[in-house]
Amino acid sequence: MRPLALSMGEPAGIGIELALALWAARGQVEIPPFLAVGDPAAFAARARLVGLDVPIAEADPESAGPLFPDCFPVMPTGRAARAAPGRATTDDAEGVIEAIRLGVEFVHSGRCSALVTLPIAKAPLVAAGFPHPGHTEYLGALTEALWGRPARAVMLLWAQEIAVVPVTVHIPLREAPDRLTENEIVETARIVVRDFKRRFRIEHPRVAIAGLNPHAGEQGVLGSEDEAVIAPAVERLKAEGVIVTGPHPADTMFHAEARARYDVALAMYHDQALIPVKTLAFDRAVNVTLGLPFVRTSPDHGTAFDIAGTGKANPASLRAALDLAARLSREPALE
Amino acid sequence: MRPLALSMGEPAGIGIELALALWAARGQVEIPPFLAVGDPAAFAARARLVGLDVPIAEADPESAGPLFPDCFPVMPTGRAARAAPGRATTDDAEGVIEAIRLGVEFVHSGRCSALVTLPIAKAPLVAAGFPHPGHTEYLGALTEALWGRPARAVMLLWAQEIAVVPVTVHIPLREAPDRLTENEIVETARIVVRDFKRRFRIEHPRVAIAGLNPHAGEQGVLGSEDEAVIAPAVERLKAEGVIVTGPHPADTMFHAEARARYDVALAMYHDQALIPVKTLAFDRAVNVTLGLPFVRTSPDHGTAFDIAGTGKANPASLRAALDLAARLSREPALE
Repeated sequence: MRPLALSMGEPAGIGIELALALWAARGQVEIPPFLAVGDPAAFAARARLVGLDVPIAEADPESAGPLFPDCFPVMPTGRAARAAPGRATTDDAEGVIEAIRLGVEFVHSGRCSALVTLPIAKAPLVAAGFPHPGHTEYLGALTEALWGRPARAVMLLWAQEIAVVPVTVHIPLREAPDRLTENEIVETARIVVRDFKRRFRIEHPRVAIAGLNPHAGEQGVLGSEDEAVIAPAVERLKAEGVIVTGPHPADTMFHAEARARYDVALAMYHDQALIPVKTLAFDRAVNVTLGLPFVRTSPDHGTAFDIAGTGKANPASLRAALDLAARLSREPALE
Repeated sequence: MRPLALSMGEPAGIGIELALALWAARGQVEIPPFLAVGDPAAFAARARLVGLDVPIAEADPESAGPLFPDCFPVMPTGRAARAAPGRATTDDAEGVIEAIRLGVEFVHSGRCSALVTLPIAKAPLVAAGFPHPGHTEYLGALTEALWGRPARAVMLLWAQEIAVVPVTVHIPLREAPDRLTENEIVETARIVVRDFKRRFRIEHPRVAIAGLNPHAGEQGVLGSEDEAVIAPAVERLKAEGVIVTGPHPADTMFHAEARARYDVALAMYHDQALIPVKTLAFDRAVNVTLGLPFVRTSPDHGTAFDIAGTGKANPASLRAALDLAARLSREPALE
């Protein structure tokens, strides 16, 4: 079985110790074999710091699987990490970026099955001249370079009991109503439906689309976008054969009984998607990038500099991200 | 013990049958004695329709308590309800309004302990010339008339595990950023703190204030209001001695561990408050009006015309509203 590629992320953050903690727990819980990509010395140092007895082994995609029961396999990027826990430095930017790039390359060449990324910190990358605002955009650029075609990356928040895609994401709330267009909703929904079919293997995914305004606008009394923008998008998707309902009042979409009526929800803005996901599954939510030619997941938390190096961070979300990446990439994707 | 006043609400809706169902269950679960205010014949007819054997008795606040174990007590408004289940008529508007008015009067005179309102429908009231957009505004007007002072009514969504107050409420989402002012947040928080002290009897209520933008603006990168409007409101409240934190990223405020750190959250707009409440406690959430000189609660759902008369509606939220009204009004309020 090909391993997952696990990019190191920001070495000053909690990512490294979460990966170590999960590997150390592999006797108690099933962990899909992975190949960490980063600086082996940084993993070894963090293991000592948090008191985990983890033998580190340099490895490549082919040796990672056989080594995994006995050693924590790391593919070296060739860049030594210099950060102390909690204190990121721009000196590490090159190694952080190279770990992601190498991970994608392993997936592109078929040597790894999917990519799981540990959290990065924006500030040191930006300071070092990294031109992308985050993982998603960089993965889009790598996809274009390696596969030779542009990718429209779509963020899915997933947990066992809930799956939500925000149509607009990291923008000020006051910009969301204008940034939301019929095309944006339709194109996002198409990618979601395609990937729910081929990755989640749901033949006819049921999509529920949220309204933007309170009570989905209450017939236009509480805002016009639900009728003017979202309802026409729902109609276009229906005409394309998508199983879709909405616009729904967002507040009554996310309790258990409502969730049973759909496979994935489309939210109109960041918090409308993230509030229900993190309210229900704070420690277990996974960030999945749809729309790429490969599977990419990540834990749905950041670098948590305040607790890095203490061993206190909860590896549940990383575990869920590894499990989901393995599940979604298990068999050849249906196209 | 003085009864709760329970206004009939829209007689075409589910309210009447929910009240009957709870009374009928009084042997199995503890239901605080209430006096329904409305048309006794409408209660009797609905009981027959849904197959509940409930003897209806005309009553007043003094007789309701003693009658309650054996009969469902109703204070007649003198207006016969004409609606069939699911089909509201403007002919009933006068009786619907009078039931609320009489309920408030009973609370004002001390004959009832608190007011619980069953859901009303806006359209028939508006068509009949009712000048208020909803319960809250009408209760404000009645307060001014009866107590001789203006009231600033504040909506709290409450369930056993969560309490959230939206600072802006029934407005289009695109208007929320401009309607949100430092004063609005501070004045809302003062009312919340005062009523959490005197009604919920929490001596030093801990208030958590949400940001408006994703990640609470991420130091201004994702919007300016968190730093320019919300943070100064938090500082003013701190200076007044309020135990308050924020602005917090809204998505990580509502999981169990986060909720344990505060008694009540302030949300900046409707869905930011209602999504976590209804995701966690869809059938059990109670709408509480703070800022009034009396306790008023209501179930957090509408008239549900589609199932009115079927007996299928879930009385859990009304039960929670009655329980909470009884609890909040039990002893003389601390001023």
